[in-house]
Amino acid sequence: MTIMTQKNALVISAHSADFVWRAGGAIALYAQKGWKVHVLCLSFGERGESAKMWRQPGMTLEQVKSGRREEAQRAADVLGASVSFMDCGDYPLRVNDQALFEIVDVYRTLRPEFVLTHSAQDPYNFDHPLASHLALEARIIAQAHGHHPEQDVLGAPPVYLFEPHQPEQCEWKPDFFLDITPVWEKKLSAFQVMAAQEHLWDYYTRVALQRGVQAARNSGRKVKHGEAYQSVYPRVSDDFLG
Amino acid sequence: MTIMTQKNALVISAHSADFVWRAGGAIALYAQKGWKVHVLCLSFGERGESAKMWRQPGMTLEQVKSGRREEAQRAADVLGASVSFMDCGDYPLRVNDQALFEIVDVYRTLRPEFVLTHSAQDPYNFDHPLASHLALEARIIAQAHGHHPEQDVLGAPPVYLFEPHQPEQCEWKPDFFLDITPVWEKKLSAFQVMAAQEHLWDYYTRVALQRGVQAARNSGRKVKHGEAYQSVYPRVSDDFLG
Amino acid sequence: MTIMTQKNALVISAHSADFVWRAGGAIALYAQKGWKVHVLCLSFGERGESAKMWRQPGMTLEQVKSGRREEAQRAADVLGASVSFMDCGDYPLRVNDQALFEIVDVYRTLRPEFVLTHSAQDPYNFDHPLASHLALEARIIAQAHGHHPEQDVLGAPPVYLFEPHQPEQCEWKPDFFLDITPVWEKKLSAFQVMAAQEHLWDYYTRVALQRGVQAARNSGRKVKHGEAYQSVYPRVSDDFLG
Amino acid sequence: MTIMTQKNALVISAHSADFVWRAGGAIALYAQKGWKVHVLCLSFGERGESAKMWRQPGMTLEQVKSGRREEAQRAADVLGASVSFMDCGDYPLRVNDQALFEIVDVYRTLRPEFVLTHSAQDPYNFDHPLASHLALEARIIAQAHGHHPEQDVLGAPPVYLFEPHQPEQCEWKPDFFLDITPVWEKKLSAFQVMAAQEHLWDYYTRVALQRGVQAARNSGRKVKHGEAYQSVYPRVSDDFLG
Amino acid sequence: MTIMTQKNALVISAHSADFVWRAGGAIALYAQKGWKVHVLCLSFGERGESAKMWRQPGMTLEQVKSGRREEAQRAADVLGASVSFMDCGDYPLRVNDQALFEIVDVYRTLRPEFVLTHSAQDPYNFDHPLASHLALEARIIAQAHGHHPEQDVLGAPPVYLFEPHQPEQCEWKPDFFLDITPVWEKKLSAFQVMAAQEHLWDYYTRVALQRGVQAARNSGRKVKHGEAYQSVYPRVSDDFLG
Amino acid sequence: MTIMTQKNALVISAHSADFVWRAGGAIALYAQKGWKVHVLCLSFGERGESAKMWRQPGMTLEQVKSGRREEAQRAADVLGASVSFMDCGDYPLRVNDQALFEIVDVYRTLRPEFVLTHSAQDPYNFDHPLASHLALEARIIAQAHGHHPEQDVLGAPPVYLFEPHQPEQCEWKPDFFLDITPVWEKKLSAFQVMAAQEHLWDYYTRVALQRGVQAARNSGRKVKHGEAYQSVYPRVSDDFLG
Repeated sequence: MTIMTQKNALVISAHSADFVWRAGGAIALYAQKGWKVHVLCLSFGERGESAKMWRQPGMTLEQVKSGRREEAQRAADVLGASVSFMDCGDYPLRVNDQALFEIVDVYRTLRPEFVLTHSAQDPYNFDHPLASHLALEARIIAQAHGHHPEQDVLGAPPVYLFEPHQPEQCEWKPDFFLDITPVWEKKLSAFQVMAAQEHLWDYYTRVALQRGVQAARNSGRKVKHGEAYQSVYPRVSDDFLG
Repeated sequence: MTIMTQKNALVISAHSADFVWRAGGAIALYAQKGWKVHVLCLSFGERGESAKMWRQPGMTLEQVKSGRREEAQRAADVLGASVSFMDCGDYPLRVNDQALFEIVDVYRTLRPEFVLTHSAQDPYNFDHPLASHLALEARIIAQAHGHHPEQDVLGAPPVYLFEPHQPEQCEWKPDFFLDITPVWEKKLSAFQVMAAQEHLWDYYTRVALQRGVQAARNSGRKVKHGEAYQSVYPRVSDDFLG
Repeated sequence: MTIMTQKNALVISAHSADFVWRAGGAIALYAQKGWKVHVLCLSFGERGESAKMWRQPGMTLEQVKSGRREEAQRAADVLGASVSFMDCGDYPLRVNDQALFEIVDVYRTLRPEFVLTHSAQDPYNFDHPLASHLALEARIIAQAHGHHPEQDVLGAPPVYLFEPHQPEQCEWKPDFFLDITPVWEKKLSAFQVMAAQEHLWDYYTRVALQRGVQAARNSGRKVKHGEAYQSVYPRVSDDFLG
Repeated sequence: MTIMTQKNALVISAHSADFVWRAGGAIALYAQKGWKVHVLCLSFGERGESAKMWRQPGMTLEQVKSGRREEAQRAADVLGASVSFMDCGDYPLRVNDQALFEIVDVYRTLRPEFVLTHSAQDPYNFDHPLASHLALEARIIAQAHGHHPEQDVLGAPPVYLFEPHQPEQCEWKPDFFLDITPVWEKKLSAFQVMAAQEHLWDYYTRVALQRGVQAARNSGRKVKHGEAYQSVYPRVSDDFLG
Repeated sequence: MTIMTQKNALVISAHSADFVWRAGGAIALYAQKGWKVHVLCLSFGERGESAKMWRQPGMTLEQVKSGRREEAQRAADVLGASVSFMDCGDYPLRVNDQALFEIVDVYRTLRPEFVLTHSAQDPYNFDHPLASHLALEARIIAQAHGHHPEQDVLGAPPVYLFEPHQPEQCEWKPDFFLDITPVWEKKLSAFQVMAAQEHLWDYYTRVALQRGVQAARNSGRKVKHGEAYQSVYPRVSDDFLG
Repeated sequence: MTIMTQKNALVISAHSADFVWRAGGAIALYAQKGWKVHVLCLSFGERGESAKMWRQPGMTLEQVKSGRREEAQRAADVLGASVSFMDCGDYPLRVNDQALFEIVDVYRTLRPEFVLTHSAQDPYNFDHPLASHLALEARIIAQAHGHHPEQDVLGAPPVYLFEPHQPEQCEWKPDFFLDITPVWEKKLSAFQVMAAQEHLWDYYTRVALQRGVQAARNSGRKVKHGEAYQSVYPRVSDDFLG
């Protein structure tokens, strides 16, 4: 028996770029701490989040997927994460039970200490809440003793929901601010990989600054850049200030 | 300038016994860590939570107050906390601005790292939500530069709401389970001081066990006894697992 | 010791006419069952709900109060209830602790089996939620052993919130439909006493019919006229179908 | 035409043991009143709720199902109910339209006076809310005149949601406490049949005691053991105190 | 290039009559303004909303569908709208991705300025929330550049949810009252086409009057008949009073 | 009788600078349309929102008030509004009935077409929700025929709640985005008047840009700078697109 010293985190992203805007700071921070962070993209965002590519004449679905995949891979490299893609389609994302069980396999293999995914609601984007639902459903199945009974069951990794594009419209309320100040430059570099979504660079830079101000206000810490999250399950600790 | 090494926590309790049932584990745990934990009781619970004493013939309000005060002092001793009383009356609790400013003074003097108080709603007990409201209002005033400008302003200590008697009816949803297993015996001893409320010993022993099971389920930790809390403000950290 | 055979119900109404539109059916139904139903009006609705009277030249506050009082008395007579008035003022209603304790006295004296009052929110009328708050606060105090310890404490009568004028805007959601078909004519007669608010006769006739249709839909019973209520506390029974 | 004197109740349970912990008191109580109570289990809980069996070497899915089925049958016998199983699978439960129509058939055949099922949300268990959704959906279809038009349509039986494992996390708020004191011993005996889930015996004994205390507090009745429920539809009655 | 002067609105209705009761006023009003209003019925309501037809001996599903279709066509004629039917089935409504893409096509073709559909929840009718969900999902897909990239993408038409049968039970809260006084007679005429649902004529006449009173109360306008809606997305304007 | 051509708007602000950050765009926009916009400041924010001034040695409360008053006056000048101050104190704001009736007088005198004020909740600032409550309460009293019966009663001006500092923590959800692009420079100039709160300039510039992006996303309009609002009462119109 080998001793497991490598700690893992898992990010479940509906489209290939979501993890950059919404959780890029968390990824870079934990990568820097020496963790293995894996990003699982359920689709490439090929139909719904690739407007700029589609404006090029003669563009095909395969070209868009391939371009988006390459971009996401490079952004993950910048952040220090591994990434894999399930190609389930987008707008609408559709995930059957076979694909769901693949996500379960990822949980059972990685045994993440925590999981990041989308908000539970989003009236502008139904792929996001579906990804969130699947992330929770796969976690539940991975905890079942009778699912591949020869494997060890999963523990109870906390799940955090990252920030949607229009937070209040998604009934999403952050209860955790992550200080990403030390890795902000990395997050920004990852933004810049996403050439197809240049309009979002400034938007999410401002988000990071606003969340930084709010984090400082809620703690007295000096925080310049922040990411906001909503927890799904109660935290368990012997420390109120953890 | 002296270095402040003593860490403080503050518990704001509507009546003289609330802190025992609802936060006794937290108090004992932090006292054991070497913190100074102070309990501020806004009333003695003399009218509404002293049924057993009132059943004794010839009982007077002053006798009830004095009995309840003594009991609360002994329970605080068992838990390792200091306690003070404001005698604002109960059923109904009424706190004027002068009393509010006294609570502000406690914040400014103790400079607590965290604060524990009641739930924001309780259709069975209006003193509890009022105490909760006052705890937040005093914290806000203590943060104002123009309130006693010669004093240092308060930082941003997190506030946690402890468990009401009928949780679901109070729209209270715990997002933090504190593992109180190591101090459970102390909490139980403090229960036993409250002779006037013997019917609650078993009730809150069961609460501790249920919250323990739930804490274990949410974390994989071995937790036997727990206390549940709802946070008021977002947590700020560089650690999802804090 | 005498056997208490008379059963009581209590209706707490912010203004002198609210009980007619909102709980007139319940009052008539229980009066007809032989109960003693008492209506406590915290004000006469003299400023905010007497538009028609104020349009008469030379009208004075005292005249309006007296007119409203008389009307309310006649409506209560039609429904079969007793009524009393506290003259606390309206728009805004203001109730100090002395008046609150008078409401407590009413609870302790009548010992009602159930209580009807206003919704907890109403952005069009702040007297209504205040009356609702007071009805609950007085009930809590009446349960305290140390409030007039020489009296018997109150039990736990259920409280139901009757229908506000614009239900959805008041975050009011009915969970109980009362079949008032047998006493509809009495409720309508009580409407007609309220000459100053003729515009409401049709409005609340339609409310009764809509709630009747909904009651039938939720039960299979033949219900023509209904009143809708939201319960504050859980029902306790050994019968799901009670 | 025969006169229907037999009254029926229906319990829809995702897994084969849920009905014991969550509604065993209701079942025993109504069985004792002479009602026919039928439990419909959508799965055996073979994968997700049979940890102890899976720890036995060489265990197979069929053995687990068969063991769980037998246990559930014995528990139903103890409580006085009939039970049937649909074998739809668990973790994840999957119910297609054909299975849905079978549930509709159960409604049309039994014509239950009331229905008990799971909470509408549960972030720890997606089979439970799905079972709840199906219970409501089947009820709706059973009310449609064009579904098997040769049959009589269903009336409007009330539906109650029984207690989930971590109530507050499921946004479940009880509005009805059932007094199960007279049948507590039977419920406890049914617990003891569930040898595979011994860790839950104490947990749900404590739940019964807590709900008993709360039921007493909300009513003044002497209640020792209780079960808590949330109603889906408004109650319709001519009696506030039903 | 032709200048598009024709303005379109789209109503997405689960069953063939929903649009009459719930949005008939809006349809008539905009038709009268010269707009092209199109009603898309996902089913005929053949099973669940045709009780009266099913009571006729020898009735078949095809006859019911055909009767309901004809009625809906006549009601649309009265209101001044076009109507189309997708025949997806009802009780339960089931819409696969092919049908979903047909709804997307309708969006892309009509390019509506606004969309009306059902409430997001309805515990009495699961076809309604499904239709609402599909209306939003199709709108999202129609906005995706990669869905039929040769077509122009959809803009961001506002979506309004019309009134369900039991508003409070559906967690539906209106934030917009449409004044339909000028077209009330047309709406009433459309009611009268729906011979199979005569019991609803009075019900929805009363709804229109209640919403009229409420609209007047919220604005000071003279409104006799109203329709109430809940918006899904924020309004954008340079005018608070729009 | 004179024809009233001047249209009025009213902004009710807890402290002397709130209106600048939160509603400065609306004020400038309507001033530019020729409306009379009046800002009513309940306090100067002298204790809680003047940190920078208090850091100056020898500062007194009167000096702070006077400095804040002057600043607010200059900011109002820049925006084109009139401003008045009630000096009710801050941290905590306290408004007695006499002051409430002064607010009522402002309503009766100005007869505003719409009203802007704070969010209904704010766990960081209790003066803000109190101001919001008072704004609604005064509006209700101003509608009462019996309050100064010799005056004309108020109509039903819509009330919008402007953006709090940490929107999601205040349970505030915007349903209206105002396009303030044409007046953005004026709003920015007003920011720059508030020398004591320089740290907020960038924060609220970013807020304006984020709300601008969201407004564009929700409408297809070109919006660069926006302000977000939550409506209190339903909108009444004959136009979905108003």
